[in-house]
Amino acid sequence: MTDDPKAVTLESVGKLAGVSRSTVSRVINGLPGVSERAEQAVQDAINQLGYIPNNMARGLATRRAAVVTALIPEKMDRFFGDPFFGSVISGIEDYMSETPLVLNLMVTSEKAFQKTLAFLAGGQSDGILVLSHHTSHEMVEALERRVPVVYGGRPLRDPTHATYVDADNRDGARKAVQHLVDRKCQRIAMITGPDDMPSGKERLWGFMDVTEESGTLGPIENGDYSAQSGANAARRLLAKHEPFDGLFVANDLMARAAVDILLASGKRIPDDVAVVGFDDSKAAVSSEPLLTTVRQDSWKQGWLMAQLITEMIGGATEPRSIQLPTSLVVRETA
Amino acid sequence: MTDDPKAVTLESVGKLAGVSRSTVSRVINGLPGVSERAEQAVQDAINQLGYIPNNMARGLATRRAAVVTALIPEKMDRFFGDPFFGSVISGIEDYMSETPLVLNLMVTSEKAFQKTLAFLAGGQSDGILVLSHHTSHEMVEALERRVPVVYGGRPLRDPTHATYVDADNRDGARKAVQHLVDRKCQRIAMITGPDDMPSGKERLWGFMDVTEESGTLGPIENGDYSAQSGANAARRLLAKHEPFDGLFVANDLMARAAVDILLASGKRIPDDVAVVGFDDSKAAVSSEPLLTTVRQDSWKQGWLMAQLITEMIGGATEPRSIQLPTSLVVRETA
Repeated sequence: MTDDPKAVTLESVGKLAGVSRSTVSRVINGLPGVSERAEQAVQDAINQLGYIPNNMARGLATRRAAVVTALIPEKMDRFFGDPFFGSVISGIEDYMSETPLVLNLMVTSEKAFQKTLAFLAGGQSDGILVLSHHTSHEMVEALERRVPVVYGGRPLRDPTHATYVDADNRDGARKAVQHLVDRKCQRIAMITGPDDMPSGKERLWGFMDVTEESGTLGPIENGDYSAQSGANAARRLLAKHEPFDGLFVANDLMARAAVDILLASGKRIPDDVAVVGFDDSKAAVSSEPLLTTVRQDSWKQGWLMAQLITEMIGGATEPRSIQLPTSLVVRETA
Repeated sequence: MTDDPKAVTLESVGKLAGVSRSTVSRVINGLPGVSERAEQAVQDAINQLGYIPNNMARGLATRRAAVVTALIPEKMDRFFGDPFFGSVISGIEDYMSETPLVLNLMVTSEKAFQKTLAFLAGGQSDGILVLSHHTSHEMVEALERRVPVVYGGRPLRDPTHATYVDADNRDGARKAVQHLVDRKCQRIAMITGPDDMPSGKERLWGFMDVTEESGTLGPIENGDYSAQSGANAARRLLAKHEPFDGLFVANDLMARAAVDILLASGKRIPDDVAVVGFDDSKAAVSSEPLLTTVRQDSWKQGWLMAQLITEMIGGATEPRSIQLPTSLVVRETA
């Protein structure tokens, strides 16, 4: 045995056992998909080197199970109102149900944000998954120095040092707007997401890419991903009396609300205005007309976030990022 | 100061300060609604007696904020699919946002239930709120010996020793079925909730009370509160070929699904079959025809649960129960 078990890493265990770091991580975290022979080799290497996985060390010290906290800095009604969150969290839970890790959800409004972070800074979680990250949340980044953090969506500040799983938002937005251009839309409007969120910015950038290139740039109104903000933005677009025959909306929940406002104002969809959303959440198909939208695999995003945090708790230290592709789903609104 | 600060109770602090136990609790938990004078009297009494509130004592010992865990023993899609949960949890969060307590959500399927309970048994929560309790969950009751627990809904086993906030399910069901009798329904069917949950049993009992009294008892099919189970139960009711002109469904989500099945089979609602649900959740008004249903104030249930657990963490030990009244909301289906 070495003198300091803490100095032993996943890499050194893997090297001795003749397997990859991720195989070591799988064995430590009790995940399937490892041959009996490899598992035995890893166990032997662990015993020989005196390796103590971080989570086991913590568990031994405190006699408790390892816990991962999913931190969602949103109001409760946003959390329950947008099917995107349910989908990501199902992915996280489906992965974690195969591990000894326990999942905590902390949904925290601006008002309760400070006390939640103070709680997390107390070291009560072995890993933190951050969903719906806003740039105003510098304090979340401060947590990274204490505990492994995986972001759902690329953090705007210093992404090179962060581990995250993101959809290719800019490319998805390009696909949405290109579809409207291909339909011969002349003037394409947009309802944006919040400008303090990376996904909000990137979907706007994708919209700008294609509308500027094709000379179809129309009016832009801001939303915050809530249905109410989508309805309000659609009303403002109509009140401007700047014509538009295409509309890209930065998420399905806002798109659903905007479609209702447009229909109520007498517009035919897609004949007068063709509309494309983003997410392909349950909101896209919750009522007629069915939304044409950009599909991101939210369940898979959650599943991969859970996998990354499990590996980090097991000792992985290198920041990694995964970008998931998006695809256009053509239904009735465009 | 007394020799043992732990022996000092909320009651003795209140007695010395000349205020009620609940006023002491409010001061300790930093809640509004206490006069400056009463607050000073409580602080003086605390200093004089050397009282250490449980949560502060814990906080001092472990240097962390107090945390309340809302334990929801359901699958993730049930949790996100039924607006009832969002409503109760909003009530909990709205109360707790005014306190120093932090809220954790643990949504745990049958598969992950054991590890979640093992985690909670490790003493990581200062209080536990149990929603959607099933009778098979004896282990939850074992937690009561370690940490304050408040139930949403009366626990079936030994309710006299438990603290809970419940809707008057039996009376609510009676109101629903009496409304169908008053509409001259001759044969009233029911789709029940899960028979391992008190609310499921009590809504069935209320149905039996009125249908037996009025001689209108029709066929009964079991559901589990999920939309899918409501649709399946409605299909089984139709397949039986036992006529019914009234239908009481134990929650709105199942009622919504049953209405769709009945309409698809050619039944007119309410002319051929009048339908009443239970909850008055968002599901009741999510599509046409709008559901006639029994309203329970889920937000208030959550708010009161948070208040009770705060008081228990502050030192209250007597089991208490609160039963919330229900009311009939007449819309389109009956």
